[in-house]
Amino acid sequence: MGGDHGVRVTLPSIADFLRAFDDCSVLLVGNEKLISPFLTDHPAIGSRCSILHTEEEVLSSDPISVALRQKKSSSMRLAIEQVRDGVAQAAVSAGNTGALMALSRFLLKTHPGIDRPAIISALPTSSGHCYMLDLGANVDVEADHLLQFARMGALVAQLRDNRTRPRVALLNIGSEDIKGNQLIKSAHQLLMSSDLHYVGYIEGDGIFRDEADVVVCDGFVGNVALKCSEGVAHLLADRIRFEVSRSPLRKFLGLLSLPIWRALKKQMDPSLYNGASLVGLTGVVVKSHGGASRQGFLNALGVARAEAIHNLPDRIAGCFQPTES
Amino acid sequence: MGGDHGVRVTLPSIADFLRAFDDCSVLLVGNEKLISPFLTDHPAIGSRCSILHTEEEVLSSDPISVALRQKKSSSMRLAIEQVRDGVAQAAVSAGNTGALMALSRFLLKTHPGIDRPAIISALPTSSGHCYMLDLGANVDVEADHLLQFARMGALVAQLRDNRTRPRVALLNIGSEDIKGNQLIKSAHQLLMSSDLHYVGYIEGDGIFRDEADVVVCDGFVGNVALKCSEGVAHLLADRIRFEVSRSPLRKFLGLLSLPIWRALKKQMDPSLYNGASLVGLTGVVVKSHGGASRQGFLNALGVARAEAIHNLPDRIAGCFQPTES
Repeated sequence: MGGDHGVRVTLPSIADFLRAFDDCSVLLVGNEKLISPFLTDHPAIGSRCSILHTEEEVLSSDPISVALRQKKSSSMRLAIEQVRDGVAQAAVSAGNTGALMALSRFLLKTHPGIDRPAIISALPTSSGHCYMLDLGANVDVEADHLLQFARMGALVAQLRDNRTRPRVALLNIGSEDIKGNQLIKSAHQLLMSSDLHYVGYIEGDGIFRDEADVVVCDGFVGNVALKCSEGVAHLLADRIRFEVSRSPLRKFLGLLSLPIWRALKKQMDPSLYNGASLVGLTGVVVKSHGGASRQGFLNALGVARAEAIHNLPDRIAGCFQPTES
Repeated sequence: MGGDHGVRVTLPSIADFLRAFDDCSVLLVGNEKLISPFLTDHPAIGSRCSILHTEEEVLSSDPISVALRQKKSSSMRLAIEQVRDGVAQAAVSAGNTGALMALSRFLLKTHPGIDRPAIISALPTSSGHCYMLDLGANVDVEADHLLQFARMGALVAQLRDNRTRPRVALLNIGSEDIKGNQLIKSAHQLLMSSDLHYVGYIEGDGIFRDEADVVVCDGFVGNVALKCSEGVAHLLADRIRFEVSRSPLRKFLGLLSLPIWRALKKQMDPSLYNGASLVGLTGVVVKSHGGASRQGFLNALGVARAEAIHNLPDRIAGCFQPTES
């Protein structure tokens, strides 16, 4: 367990999580030597933690084949096996996304009627947030997969936000019917004749204007869209920091304006949107950003808890069963 | 001529342009009745403007077929014809992008060796700007088209920014060789064996971190990436405005911090990046954002002037000729 910053970030974050939710306990899969001292230092939390020891780990540079075939006792694999075997209700990892997806798919399998799992995450909008999928699990998809993503996304919005009829949109490069490639046009037809509350095409900027609750796209486009959004947000934050620190006067003004910056940070902090779930599988698996902060990893744990409580995998299975039979 | 705000925005912008560049004159293609009064009021500028009158215009809702086959004397078509006939050295339009691309391609044609024109624009980065193409002209491309885009983009960076060896990158969803779809992998091979300064894959966030001077992608991905970036920037700007105006005290602090906001606006203002050119054609055509401000339209005019001065179309033709023969 770890991500880019290792247990230095994840363990304090798990402590925060256990303090916030007394209905949860945590099974820590990783190197006992790194984990034990923290638990000894925090006995109140330590009593709700157990350790599944392993020293093998999937590296971010490992090809999927290595994670799947060679590292049979990696912490990532063992964590997913705990979900498969009913020992844990959800697995959270800050590791290699490709390996996590491949291992999850291999060990947990998808539900009948779902060809491929997808990665879904919340994104900020002008009046709250929306969900976008797929964010990188599937680079080559067919129209029918996009319809499956749409149905899974709608269920996530329903369960997590209590939305009775989430607005589903298809990401495209124009809102007119004639725009887009063949894949998008076919998916548009499928969505039009589905029972979803399909609101049509959405453009990249529409995502952030709250034009939909669920935005559907293939994994290539979704990943680029997500990373671009993160890139622009970082660029803007850097520019603000630079401008505020340019002179003593500006630093002083910046200090005076601290409540404004704090409020902005609170709303736009990428940590708040950390935690992408792999939907379509028979168990809950949540991916945290490798470089997530303590707050970010805590958020990913919260996503995992919410999906386990709502029993998202079974609800998705139930939603696909009747239409497939 | 007009865009979303019509001549109210474009005419003052043209006046600014003529004041800034005394080596230019402007041929205004559109409704004389709307244009003349402005020219009469600004005689110094009026002397360097002429009008090509037409009342027909391509609407943003017009399908491409209408623009191509029915509206034979639309202002858009007449403007491009002036470029084709050597009357003008560049055409600038704030109208329907699809129609502009189709008319430009039909009237100006592409250079030998170039299968498809592409849309290219500058995007802000941590240390200046980069160029990205294609931004929406081509939704279904082959690997060879991406190589052509790369070569055109490199030439734009060379000519407009005096970069001797622009870094060219391919937009992908990971920086490892195994990532991406088949199209990307094939284009990667082509770029590796080209004479370009190819730096490999770039992820969405890398665009804004100055990892490349030219970012190559297909028109679907490029358009989504561009629009997402605009969407996030608008969302952040709106949040800042909201936070600053929440209380009288904050408004006061906001006023005190005006130099900071102004500097940020100056750097991040989308107007500064307005003006996307259609490259690969035998003439210069620049697309302004429909909703561009006076400053934005001025920037698009500046892009057109720079490309005409550098004779970009001929330079691109020259760059493709030898390798194709």
